[in-house]
Formats: sequence, structure tokens, C-alpha cells
Amino acid sequence: MLTPGQAPLADLLTAELHASLTDPALEGMNLLNELVMRFPGAISFAAGRPFEGFFRVEDLHRHLRTYCEYLADELGQTSEQVVRTLFQYGRTKGVIHEFIARNLAVDEGIKADPESIVVTVGCQEAMYLVLRALRADERDVLLAVSPMYVGITGAAKLVDMPVLGVEDAEHLTDLQAVIDRARAGGLRPRALYLVPDFSNPSGYSLSAATRHRLLEIAEREDLLLLEDNPYGLFSLDDERPPTLKSLDTRRRVVYLGSFAKTCFPGARVGFAVADQYVWDGQAERPELFADQLSKIKSMLTVNTPAFAQALVAGKLIESDYSLNSANAGLRQVYRDNLRRLLDGLARRFPPGGPVEVTWNTPGGGFFVVLTVPFTVTDEHLERCAREHGVLWVPMHHFYDGQTPTRQIRLSCSALDAALIDEGLDRFAEFVTGAMNQAT
Amino acid sequence: MLTPGQAPLADLLTAELHASLTDPALEGMNLLNELVMRFPGAISFAAGRPFEGFFRVEDLHRHLRTYCEYLADELGQTSEQVVRTLFQYGRTKGVIHEFIARNLAVDEGIKADPESIVVTVGCQEAMYLVLRALRADERDVLLAVSPMYVGITGAAKLVDMPVLGVEDAEHLTDLQAVIDRARAGGLRPRALYLVPDFSNPSGYSLSAATRHRLLEIAEREDLLLLEDNPYGLFSLDDERPPTLKSLDTRRRVVYLGSFAKTCFPGARVGFAVADQYVWDGQAERPELFADQLSKIKSMLTVNTPAFAQALVAGKLIESDYSLNSANAGLRQVYRDNLRRLLDGLARRFPPGGPVEVTWNTPGGGFFVVLTVPFTVTDEHLERCAREHGVLWVPMHHFYDGQTPTRQIRLSCSALDAALIDEGLDRFAEFVTGAMNQAT
Repeated sequence: MLTPGQAPLADLLTAELHASLTDPALEGMNLLNELVMRFPGAISFAAGRPFEGFFRVEDLHRHLRTYCEYLADELGQTSEQVVRTLFQYGRTKGVIHEFIARNLAVDEGIKADPESIVVTVGCQEAMYLVLRALRADERDVLLAVSPMYVGITGAAKLVDMPVLGVEDAEHLTDLQAVIDRARAGGLRPRALYLVPDFSNPSGYSLSAATRHRLLEIAEREDLLLLEDNPYGLFSLDDERPPTLKSLDTRRRVVYLGSFAKTCFPGARVGFAVADQYVWDGQAERPELFADQLSKIKSMLTVNTPAFAQALVAGKLIESDYSLNSANAGLRQVYRDNLRRLLDGLARRFPPGGPVEVTWNTPGGGFFVVLTVPFTVTDEHLERCAREHGVLWVPMHHFYDGQTPTRQIRLSCSALDAALIDEGLDRFAEFVTGAMNQAT
Repeated sequence: MLTPGQAPLADLLTAELHASLTDPALEGMNLLNELVMRFPGAISFAAGRPFEGFFRVEDLHRHLRTYCEYLADELGQTSEQVVRTLFQYGRTKGVIHEFIARNLAVDEGIKADPESIVVTVGCQEAMYLVLRALRADERDVLLAVSPMYVGITGAAKLVDMPVLGVEDAEHLTDLQAVIDRARAGGLRPRALYLVPDFSNPSGYSLSAATRHRLLEIAEREDLLLLEDNPYGLFSLDDERPPTLKSLDTRRRVVYLGSFAKTCFPGARVGFAVADQYVWDGQAERPELFADQLSKIKSMLTVNTPAFAQALVAGKLIESDYSLNSANAGLRQVYRDNLRRLLDGLARRFPPGGPVEVTWNTPGGGFFVVLTVPFTVTDEHLERCAREHGVLWVPMHHFYDGQTPTRQIRLSCSALDAALIDEGLDRFAEFVTGAMNQAT
């Protein structure tokens, strides 16, 4: 399209579009997608997508029938009412809020008022709704534990909200200093976003002591805590620390949930538990923060698709509201994969061996973060895809994208034992080669 | 909760939340929802929701099967690939873009490159994506034909984008003046939003001459046209004017589509056709505006639910891609309803009779706008619900909410002949009573 000396045909210039479109974080995702397409034979430790071996199309039909039967038999709905529930616009906050409340009580010990639940198009929409509500003017900022999930930085960009990093991902010891520094600069830190269990990408889980300390800070500093919990059910052992929300007695926590990993990503159903009281300075009673989020949702997606809610509800009903129980088989797959990945790393990179690679040992989830003896760039990733047939994520993409790191994130969720073994062989060759080139 | 002299318990103050939460337009919707709940026996001319007499739960199962068979038989997908398409995260721009392109060609004569289509969570998300992209800084404003659909004003509020009204809804004669005035004030009008066919709420359709003139203005003024077409298939007669997009040879039009009225609202599936070229000042080739919208979508909802897309695709396949044909029965219902409403008004408010009521005669769609001999307030609406058992929408909600009008919008989409007749009897009593009180 380009003639030498001429600009290409253009109806719009990027410089005249919103800044989120030139966010460096998008470049990382684009590169990975491109490499996946160029090298379809590459084994990918990059994607954190769920294992799909248990998915069955017939389950979708059954979930829909289960939900329809529930509406008719348990709620006494006529067939016209069932049709209206499935086919029409519906309640903005969602139609499966009571199912979700039961699931939270059973699986997490969270007692949520169903009216405080907003059913969203994935957890991503829930994040956006909360940030849109909290970004009132240019003083309002978000805090987030670094390295950050790209979803939260993306949502923040859509509302032009700066994100300040809390650097101690394991103990949050610098949290108070970050809050103080922001306030001293005239800013209003509104909330701290974090993933307390098996965080993506760091893999850290917060200790019980840290969770309690965090809730005290939140109360004292009038800070909300945005707790995101996509991986909580996928621990390596059976002990799971309590969610922040289950410990929350002061309405400090907005709990952001997702059924992507515990049901199926294709439904795109998530939710927020937002039981905070909001007062307008006049009304006799406050409103729920969930009703504020609902107003924003009505201007964004209007409703979460009733069909998708129906499928999740059907699965919840069939599982007696416990996804923890329903996912026993899936949890075993992830445990096996994570252990195989960790054992495989230990075999290929023994301590004291010629290649100095270290890594964290997460208590569950999908991700392991390695530290290698060279700065990791996107060029390394491309060369590794091309010459070694293996993909992974350079960790610099989870920071501001400018600071170089020596870290790599490996995901084991969408693989099996054979692919993990073969993938690690290829990866080890790459690391050895890259290390030799660096020295 | 409130003790005299005490503020209620509050974790957040409305004054410290985003301005969209106190948008006056929300008050109108809240009032209607409240009145529906308080007076469940009221006949509603308020809701523009679709007729549901043809919805069948079994159709959902069939649509899903149709789509799965298509994937397997026509695209040669293995059962694992079919599962991946339905259950996993997918292509951000959507998976049914080629079906939508075929449908647009068959029903509207629009030749859209499938790559220029973004499948969204309803038309509302498409509106938000476009406005978010176009609102780069405080100079960027949107134009919209007044009275405005509340969806576009809501989406604009989410990105803090002012909306300037074009007052001549039928011929747009003041469009140039609005553009000039905005530019003189240092603003950048980026786009004009409009519903050219059976606009909600005014009911106007733009003539062919106006459509051509509009495209010329858009080309000359470097203005995009956001064409929203939810009702185009529901004309009173068989002649349908061409969409702006079908006449667009200069990539001026972003076509915003929805399957809410032509398939089912509960799927929440819409789309944007955004084939404009976007250049960053460096690359050899421009990108499509659709790919910019996709980047924003990836930070907002990640994907439109695959299940919902599958249902719409199944219906499209079964309809040989023509919703115009598939909706023949539905169209007849809306034609009958609209004619019954118009005839019923003429019988109850004859010209020269004691009650001076006039109304427009739309060429199709769901809405009729009446002008009555008194200023119409929300108090009238509440009293009418309580004392007469009939609901409708005061037109002031479609303007800035402050300017009083003497206009009322009636919708006939969700009613049948008996309800229209009874509802009009009740409405005529209300109007007569209100008129007598006003004089």
C-alpha cells in the first residue's frame, strides 16, 4: 500500500485515538499471538488457558436443561416465564446471583448478600466497572501488586487511571509507603488490586498473617481491596488459606470472581461482590456499591448474556453449588502438570550445575517464574520459537514494559506430561544456548 | 438506618465516584423500573423490548447443534476443535464474523470484509468501543441527532465525552452549523451518531436524499457516521431505504449492528463494521479500525461469549443468512401492532375533537411520539401508573433531562391487539384528565 515517499491511505491517525491503543502491554500479547500463528508446531508454556480435556458439547445442552427445569420446578415459573428469562433483556445485576452466593458460601465460606453481586461478562468487565466507578477525577489512582496481571492494567488504561506498583509481592511491606507517597503527591489511592492465591504471574500466595495485616491497613487507610481469585481452587495440597472476603468484617473487599477456570472460559461469566455502602449526602438509606456498578454496566453491556448465565447456573446446580468438588479431576490434572513442570526443571537445571536457573515453588495455580542468567528480551522469545519450537512469556511484559528482567513465566495449564517433558527439553537447549551467547 | 441528625453508614460517597453514576438519564430508567414493580398490572407502552411469542427453548438447542454441525461438516473441524471453539477464549474480534458478513450482504447489500467486523456484547459494547477510541483528549466530542437514544449518551458518559445535539431529526439541516460551532470553540467533532431507520425515539427515517447529503458532509468534514440499525427490518411496507453503509464508498460509516430484535436480546450479540484505515505514522501498512476496537475490547470483556455467538450463528445458518426472511412472521406482528396503535389513536383523538393530541406516523419500528396539550412530567407518569394502570415514556428523558416537553413516547412491540386497545382506553382517560387539570 505504501508508495515510497507517500504515507499510506489513512482515515484515522493513531495519534488522534485514545492512549490505551498504544499501550506497550498490548505489544506483548500481539507478539505471542503472532508467534503462535507463525510456529504452530511450537510447544507453548505461554498460554494460561484452561485444560480442555473434560469439555463436552453435550454438557452444554444438559446445563441448559438443568437450569430450565430448576426455573420450572423450584421457582414455579411458567414456560412463558422461562422463555422470558432466557431470551429477553433481564435484570442488569444478573439472574444467577443467588446461585453464585450459594457457591461462594459452600466453596469459600463467603457470606454474600445476593443483592451485592453483579454478574459480569467475565472478571474483566467487573474490573472495569469498579475502576470506572472509582476514577472520579485526576487524583484517583489504583495500587496493584507488581508484577501485575495485564487485565488490571488494561482496565485502568480504559479509564485513564494511573496504577502505582507495590513491589513486595509476597509480604506487601512497602504498601504503606506507596500509600503515603501517593497522598503526599496530592493523589487519592482508592484501592489495591491483588490476586492473593497463586498470583498470575508471580505465583505468590499471601500468608494468613499478611492477609490480616492487609485488612487492617485497608480499614485504617480507607482503601478498598480488589481481590481477584481465579485459581484459588487449584492448590497443590488440600489446605487453602481463607479469602480476604471471607475475613472481611468492614466491607473493605470487593471480591472479583470468574468462572473461566472453574467452569469454561467460553461462557465469559464473572462477577463482583460489592457490598460497600454508598451515600449521596441526602438519601435516608445508602445504596449498595453493586447498584452503582450496575448503573455503569447498563451503559456498557446492558446485560450479561442470559444463555451464558444459564450454562453456569446449570453446572452449579448439578455440582450442588460446589465447584471445588466438581473440579476434583481437573485439579488433579493441574497438580500433576505443575509437579511435572517443577520436577522437570529440577532435573534439567540441578543446583550447582552448569546452567544457573532458579525458580519459585508456588503452592498451586498455573505458573512458575524462572530467573535465568541473562536479560530476557522479546528477541529471545522469537528466536526460541523459531529455532527451538517452544514459547513462554518474558516477565518484563508484566511490569511497565521498559525495565529489563532476567525472568520468564512458564504456564503448564494447557499441556500434558509428554508436552511438558518435550517442551522442557527444548527450553533447556534454548537457555543453554542463550546463556552461552550472553557470556 | 438513619438516626435523626446522623448520616447513614457509608463506605463511599457518591461525590467521590465517577460522574456517570449521577447521570440524570439513569433516573428515568430507574423510575420506570420502579413503577413496573409497584404496578404489575399496568399495561406498558414504555418498554421497547421485542415480542416474545415466537421464542422456544428448543430452538436454542437446535441452533447450537446447527453451528456444531457446520463447524464439523463445512469447516472440517475435529471434535476437539469444535470443543475449543465453544469452550475456550477465542478470537477477540469474534468467531462468527463471516456469518455476519454474509447476513449483511444478503439483507442489506453491505459488502463488509469479515476482518473489519468486531462481534460485541450487544450493540452497546460496540458503541463504547468506538467512543473510547475516538475520545483521545478533551477536545473530542460526539454529535448525535436529538432526541437521543439513551444508550449512546450513556456510553459517551463512560468516556467523559460531551455530546452535541443536532436538532433537526428529519433533515439534519443544522448539522453543518453544529460542526462549525464546535470547531470555532476549539472542539473536534469526531462522529455523528444516528439511527437512520425508524429512529428510537423519534420514529423518523432519513430520506434517500438526506442520506446522500449526509455522506457528502461526512467526507468533506472528515466526520465519521455511526449508523445504528436495530429496527431496519421492521418497516410497515416492503420498501426499505438503503443503509448509509451500503452507500458508503469513502469509509465514512461505522455500522453498528445488533441481533437483539432480529434474533433474541438474551444472547447479547452485536457488532461493528469498522473498515476505516488507521495509520500510526510509521508502519508500512495501515491497520483496520476494527483492530483498534478489538484492542479496547480485549481490556473490557476479552471475548464475546462463544456460546452466544454460536446461537446467533446457528440461527443465521438455518435462515440461509437472511433474517429479513426469517422474521417475516415477527415483522407482521409489529406491523399489526403499529397499525393498531395508530388507528387506535386516531379513533380516540379525532382531529377537531375535544382533546388535542397529535402524533407522528413512522414508516416502521416500535415507537410513536405523541404531542399532548400539557407539559409532561414524571409526576404525570407516576399518577398515570397509579390511577390509570398504563405506562409510557416522557420524552424529556431523551433530551438533556432538563428541558420540559409536551411529548410522550409509546411503544407497541411487546403488546398484542387486546392490550393495545385496553391500554389506549386507559391512556385516553389519563390524557383527558391531565388536560382538564392543566386548563
